[in-house]
Amino acid sequence: MKLQLALDTLTLQQSITLLDQTKEYLNIIEVGTPFIIENGMEPVKEFKKRYPELEILADCKIMDAGEYEASSAFKAGADIVTVLGVSNNVTIKGVINAAKKYGGKVMVDLIEVKDIKERSKELLELGVDYLCVHTAFDIQSENNNPLDELEILTNTIDAKHSAVAGGVKLKTINEIVSMKPEIVVVGGAICNASNPKEMTKNIKERMKWVL
Amino acid sequence: MKLQLALDTLTLQQSITLLDQTKEYLNIIEVGTPFIIENGMEPVKEFKKRYPELEILADCKIMDAGEYEASSAFKAGADIVTVLGVSNNVTIKGVINAAKKYGGKVMVDLIEVKDIKERSKELLELGVDYLCVHTAFDIQSENNNPLDELEILTNTIDAKHSAVAGGVKLKTINEIVSMKPEIVVVGGAICNASNPKEMTKNIKERMKWVL
Repeated sequence: MKLQLALDTLTLQQSITLLDQTKEYLNIIEVGTPFIIENGMEPVKEFKKRYPELEILADCKIMDAGEYEASSAFKAGADIVTVLGVSNNVTIKGVINAAKKYGGKVMVDLIEVKDIKERSKELLELGVDYLCVHTAFDIQSENNNPLDELEILTNTIDAKHSAVAGGVKLKTINEIVSMKPEIVVVGGAICNASNPKEMTKNIKERMKWVL
Repeated sequence: MKLQLALDTLTLQQSITLLDQTKEYLNIIEVGTPFIIENGMEPVKEFKKRYPELEILADCKIMDAGEYEASSAFKAGADIVTVLGVSNNVTIKGVINAAKKYGGKVMVDLIEVKDIKERSKELLELGVDYLCVHTAFDIQSENNNPLDELEILTNTIDAKHSAVAGGVKLKTINEIVSMKPEIVVVGGAICNASNPKEMTKNIKERMKWVL
């Protein structure tokens, strides 16, 4: 089980400070969509250089021009690139082609996908590596979290292809971990913690309980 | 009727060379999604400074964190920001809030929206400025162009809110213009033309026929 830290709203310098404190507990550094909109591939290049022992995920949320956009991220140093599950299969295939060419991996963000079960099976058959249930930032609340969707996902596909994102915090981590997703994405809970190192360590320890 | 030039695959320097040649015929400069993935908001800032007489559109294709991501683009100097029509209404509303705050406009990209008619009415009621029918780059072909969807769109909503993108070229411009969309987006047909200035001029002239 891998821990992915999503960096969305910090500057490059703030991110480096945070990563230096937390890297020993991380497996994947996510350059989040708002970070890409602001800085393009610069953080991907910088993190790849500074933290070669970690995987870098570029959360491009690709919707079109799959092969072209994914190639851009892989060339910059991304190990994993995201594409939207609501995109056309031709776009998904384009991202997969780019991943094969550059030796990278593809994660599908299932945000706004209505039938998680059907679409997940279809996407795995196309050849993607990870499927991520994702409660959008815009609709996160106490009653809106990715647990139900994660249960559907891990009941549908081999959990080694599953990932979960969207408001994951210490309070929900135990239940999430019990479903054994391959990748757990944490953003705000670490980035906004008063002691990010301690928080990252705590989350990582709980993830080890089921390993 | 406005002409929007989509810059997707050129470098910043190549874009500036092209814009210097074609700006007199343009109304809107689009910083395309692949350009943003590569360079973030840098082209938006640069074009706003160099071409203050033109509008700048940031094709962020927002899918989540609507207010945050749109604010980032408006702050960089974008006049128009795009959000995906397949995103949650909370996300659309967030983008609209940001537009109000910064005095900008919102374009919805209807890519992969199944019911153009219903969704367009709903989106206009939410308060977006433009709805763009968009044949994805990945599925463009002779038989797959945005004409049919544009007809549905302009029959559903006031054409002053309509835009069309995806493989628009000299061959299809007359038919598109006859439907009187407010914004016509042209990318490859200009960027890959042997004489981009002449091509832009030709397209713009045809657009004037119905004014």
